[in-house]
Amino acid sequence: MGVLTLRLTPMIIVLKPNATQQEIDHVLDRVRELGLKPHVSQGEHRTIIGVIGDETKLHPQSLQAIVGVEQVLPIMKPFKLASREWNKSDSIVQVGKVKIGAGYLAMIAGPCAIESREVLEEIAAAIKKAGANILRGGAFKPRTSPYAFQGMGEEGLRILREVGDKHDMPVVTEVMDPRQVPLVEKYADMFQIGARNMQNFDLLKEVGQTRKAVLLKRGMAATVKDLLMSAEYVLSEGNSAVVLCERGVRSFEESTRNMLDLAAVPNVKGLSHLPIIVDPSHATGRRDLIPSMALASVASGADGVHIEVHSCPEKALSDGPQALLPNAYAELMLQVRKIADVVGKSY
Amino acid sequence: MGVLTLRLTPMIIVLKPNATQQEIDHVLDRVRELGLKPHVSQGEHRTIIGVIGDETKLHPQSLQAIVGVEQVLPIMKPFKLASREWNKSDSIVQVGKVKIGAGYLAMIAGPCAIESREVLEEIAAAIKKAGANILRGGAFKPRTSPYAFQGMGEEGLRILREVGDKHDMPVVTEVMDPRQVPLVEKYADMFQIGARNMQNFDLLKEVGQTRKAVLLKRGMAATVKDLLMSAEYVLSEGNSAVVLCERGVRSFEESTRNMLDLAAVPNVKGLSHLPIIVDPSHATGRRDLIPSMALASVASGADGVHIEVHSCPEKALSDGPQALLPNAYAELMLQVRKIADVVGKSY
Amino acid sequence: MGVLTLRLTPMIIVLKPNATQQEIDHVLDRVRELGLKPHVSQGEHRTIIGVIGDETKLHPQSLQAIVGVEQVLPIMKPFKLASREWNKSDSIVQVGKVKIGAGYLAMIAGPCAIESREVLEEIAAAIKKAGANILRGGAFKPRTSPYAFQGMGEEGLRILREVGDKHDMPVVTEVMDPRQVPLVEKYADMFQIGARNMQNFDLLKEVGQTRKAVLLKRGMAATVKDLLMSAEYVLSEGNSAVVLCERGVRSFEESTRNMLDLAAVPNVKGLSHLPIIVDPSHATGRRDLIPSMALASVASGADGVHIEVHSCPEKALSDGPQALLPNAYAELMLQVRKIADVVGKSY
Amino acid sequence: MGVLTLRLTPMIIVLKPNATQQEIDHVLDRVRELGLKPHVSQGEHRTIIGVIGDETKLHPQSLQAIVGVEQVLPIMKPFKLASREWNKSDSIVQVGKVKIGAGYLAMIAGPCAIESREVLEEIAAAIKKAGANILRGGAFKPRTSPYAFQGMGEEGLRILREVGDKHDMPVVTEVMDPRQVPLVEKYADMFQIGARNMQNFDLLKEVGQTRKAVLLKRGMAATVKDLLMSAEYVLSEGNSAVVLCERGVRSFEESTRNMLDLAAVPNVKGLSHLPIIVDPSHATGRRDLIPSMALASVASGADGVHIEVHSCPEKALSDGPQALLPNAYAELMLQVRKIADVVGKSY
Repeated sequence: MGVLTLRLTPMIIVLKPNATQQEIDHVLDRVRELGLKPHVSQGEHRTIIGVIGDETKLHPQSLQAIVGVEQVLPIMKPFKLASREWNKSDSIVQVGKVKIGAGYLAMIAGPCAIESREVLEEIAAAIKKAGANILRGGAFKPRTSPYAFQGMGEEGLRILREVGDKHDMPVVTEVMDPRQVPLVEKYADMFQIGARNMQNFDLLKEVGQTRKAVLLKRGMAATVKDLLMSAEYVLSEGNSAVVLCERGVRSFEESTRNMLDLAAVPNVKGLSHLPIIVDPSHATGRRDLIPSMALASVASGADGVHIEVHSCPEKALSDGPQALLPNAYAELMLQVRKIADVVGKSY
Repeated sequence: MGVLTLRLTPMIIVLKPNATQQEIDHVLDRVRELGLKPHVSQGEHRTIIGVIGDETKLHPQSLQAIVGVEQVLPIMKPFKLASREWNKSDSIVQVGKVKIGAGYLAMIAGPCAIESREVLEEIAAAIKKAGANILRGGAFKPRTSPYAFQGMGEEGLRILREVGDKHDMPVVTEVMDPRQVPLVEKYADMFQIGARNMQNFDLLKEVGQTRKAVLLKRGMAATVKDLLMSAEYVLSEGNSAVVLCERGVRSFEESTRNMLDLAAVPNVKGLSHLPIIVDPSHATGRRDLIPSMALASVASGADGVHIEVHSCPEKALSDGPQALLPNAYAELMLQVRKIADVVGKSY
Repeated sequence: MGVLTLRLTPMIIVLKPNATQQEIDHVLDRVRELGLKPHVSQGEHRTIIGVIGDETKLHPQSLQAIVGVEQVLPIMKPFKLASREWNKSDSIVQVGKVKIGAGYLAMIAGPCAIESREVLEEIAAAIKKAGANILRGGAFKPRTSPYAFQGMGEEGLRILREVGDKHDMPVVTEVMDPRQVPLVEKYADMFQIGARNMQNFDLLKEVGQTRKAVLLKRGMAATVKDLLMSAEYVLSEGNSAVVLCERGVRSFEESTRNMLDLAAVPNVKGLSHLPIIVDPSHATGRRDLIPSMALASVASGADGVHIEVHSCPEKALSDGPQALLPNAYAELMLQVRKIADVVGKSY
Repeated sequence: MGVLTLRLTPMIIVLKPNATQQEIDHVLDRVRELGLKPHVSQGEHRTIIGVIGDETKLHPQSLQAIVGVEQVLPIMKPFKLASREWNKSDSIVQVGKVKIGAGYLAMIAGPCAIESREVLEEIAAAIKKAGANILRGGAFKPRTSPYAFQGMGEEGLRILREVGDKHDMPVVTEVMDPRQVPLVEKYADMFQIGARNMQNFDLLKEVGQTRKAVLLKRGMAATVKDLLMSAEYVLSEGNSAVVLCERGVRSFEESTRNMLDLAAVPNVKGLSHLPIIVDPSHATGRRDLIPSMALASVASGADGVHIEVHSCPEKALSDGPQALLPNAYAELMLQVRKIADVVGKSY
């Protein structure tokens, strides 16, 4: 890992075609006031000012507020610790005995919500046999409706831990409230930050202060850069074990729950050293689309796949239609392994 | 206000064209198992099952997971306390001495972030004179970057309270973390829940347990129904003083920060009794577009307008380009009053 | 109107942080090969090259394809004849005796499709009385389904012309195929280019070669700049009588047909001298939302409103739910006039 | 292929909770007037009316316009000839000697625009050697700007034909104007309908009347159902040789040109018998993302991949940054073949 050399953020300030000399001078004064060195380039039709300096002093938005300024274009990425420049090789995140990244695939599976020990037990046995290496299950559920099932709470966490241990799989579960972090930390090997909380910055800071791995899901309207900025919140608190998760974004297409942005996988790989996995269950919301999207995810270079599996989806207390049956999961895993071989990954 | 008569939620279950009799019977069994009465309608090409029963037993998603089922269509709105059926007349929310809704406009203004007593004082004096009736200012700021200015915290709250009192305006400020609720409650007259936290359900429950008004901003990818469901979280905890805020959603249009969905105003008015205001500052992110969007908001029937005003936008520590100068705000308010007259509103 | 002075397009080429001197030299060679003068600015961390030259030689995309280049940022707007720089004052477009723009409002109304002389006659009489000044009606209909009603064709055009003449209103109707242009030109005062054809460039060129006014609707996924580029196609063929129309764009919000981007009105006014009107009928697809959106449109500074009116929406052959009844239109127009007075417009 | 048995379209009409008996009767009268049989289901809180009848008489939108009606829900798909019900097995489309669909992959490659015989010749030799089986190249180019290179026209078509013949590859090229159809038909083996023309219905009808294969690209804001409805236009004119193409849709994500909706592949496979290929070049607009998205496409079950290849992207007259170099294409094809083997496809 490199030394933090990205202290200096260049920006380009483009003035309006009709900017007066007085306006230009005002911009230059303001830039110098911020302790920065302006480089003026007087074109035939407009003036362009390049600025390089200490980023903690730069406020692109306030510069853009000056009369006569048309655009302020930041040139560099706003994240550092998450950036590919910061770590040229792929990071590996350890969850229990499972490695994620740099060729190691996370095969996360389990029910949406933990409903009972019996059901979870049955699912865990089946997915383990099929090849899953991490068990998931929700104890605290973010539900759009206050009247929907909200999860089993600590009792659910206890069941998850015990079932995971019995089947030798580390466990991941969602945390929604900064006050729950110590409780969840006690039972889980990996925190999941859900899409709705991707920009719950106090929660990000709280899990950033632990030393447990974090599975950070992309928000429904978050760009790839927003996702990396949220990862930066966790990293900047000292926790470097962050795994990103593409799970679809909101779109006008009404036949799927979300739109899976699979290009985010190579896109993130270019910008960041962090592992990224894909969740085709939430991305599509449709059981019939999950297998092909899981195969496509591995082919695209993802570091794992997160799939909901339920032994009786029609009785699941949440998200039934997007859960695979255990035998469908087992069949899928046979194909996943072949695709993983082609792209040089293993699990 | 009415008695809670919406206990029964009708749904329509549409079977696939090739559903077998056995599959149909399985669906019927499952419906009866849930304690519901199915009404079967056997068409020439498909079977359709109507279901009416106690909604706490209905799990549309789990029904959709049954083999042979094509679609499960819920017929009724998923929110109750927020619904127009629950309260046929427009609700009025009281914030200090200011009324919002049913003809009363909230004219909320102030800087994005509280930066110092001097700056806030100067802005408050100017907006009060121009006609604003509620002062806003952020003490805790949700920032995309962990390296950006995060707000003054309690010191900011104290300044806000004092400046509000001096200029006889109630104050609204953002709360981001359930743990901050008691602190913010001590100083503010109204909690603001930001767009990024619209589905931070623990935070919604926490402010729902206070008796202070809540300004709930629409999430960046939230539908109008999602917004009303989030309001339902607050209402279902016993706090009925919720004001909604349309502030633009994410879109492909790159020349504005968000896309202002102004049709959300009459749309919400049809579905709910709650007041809804508009924030053209965050919706457009461009100072030049704010005045016309503020006028349009009042003409569309909004119950108020939320505008960022800063005496020196180019020195603002956040969101400079979307703040109006005090004199531009004063000019705008002259026009707003005329439009308010036309649509029969006052402030 | 000004002389065409925008021949020179400045661009900024930002090189990657690790670009080698050889790569930089290759970019400079390529720029010079295109006959342009590069201005190099060597920063501590990256090199930035400013380029100014004859735009017909500039191919930003091909420059971006060079190894070592991170971004190519064009600085100027890609449209000329449509730009505010080209004509600093607002253009007025004449349709028959009706003026549109610079304070004159177009009040376009009529049924979605022309169905019979009787129905159109009844609607025309009602809207004229209410204050409409242009009659609309479709003779060629773009329908998503090949099995839906496709319009009356020339017979419809003839009826439209006669009914318009009888009620002293110029008429506007959609043209979908370049081969129909001469036929439609014979009957109509204004061509409508529908949202689906906004980038049907051969059609744009064809109407650009006539001297009839063009009502250009924004495409469902078009940015404001895309809309202005399409206007540029018409203008560059010599036809300067273009009126833009905001009619909503596709979004994730499912309770309205499209999302009305009302901020496009002041946005276009800043970028272009062309008039822009709003169509709340197609933008919302819901009769209950049209009146408030029509008032908001005029308040926002739009140069007119396009509303579907039908005397019996439940028997309309297309788009019934988004048509106002004649008496609702008349009521709305009373309010529109008051808002128009406030913003200094008339019709 | 089946007999057309989908004549009857069921719909569900949901009345408002407060609908009066008079309003209900009016709906029933209207339904009977249309020659349809209503099935009334009177619930405790609302009335629901099921309607089954001759679809040519059904106008859901006009029913929705009736006072008292809340929603009209069509139950069946609006397309027929394109539907999976119409043809249960996968269709195979023949282009020259190349088969597409049902296990046969189309490997379409070539430059965005035909620029000269020499360049095309060089590219064609390289891609043929790498395994491409269809040559693409644009002679008529849809360009956002009227000032951009518009293509070589007939001279380009002639070159394309000759180079295709020389290298024994059928050729595909875009047609933009119904008047160009006979000319393009003379030279090409397959028409391409571009994203901007997906709902240019006159153009769809025109190619529907030929017997040449059609490559129909998804529009930038088109849903999967919209795409199938456009295919239905071609099919309903008698031309059944339609290949669909997913090429990304517009979204808020700014780091890629479009958002590739790869789930559209299995989604279409469920709804339709038509082959569907993927174009990662236009979908991402970024050369670095193409290889992984090409592999993912084949893994997802697509019937082919359409990739832009240029021997000197930095000199390409359009879309340079999204073209692969010939050797990168050759490398990619080695991987594609392995993934194709896993999913049981060949080319």
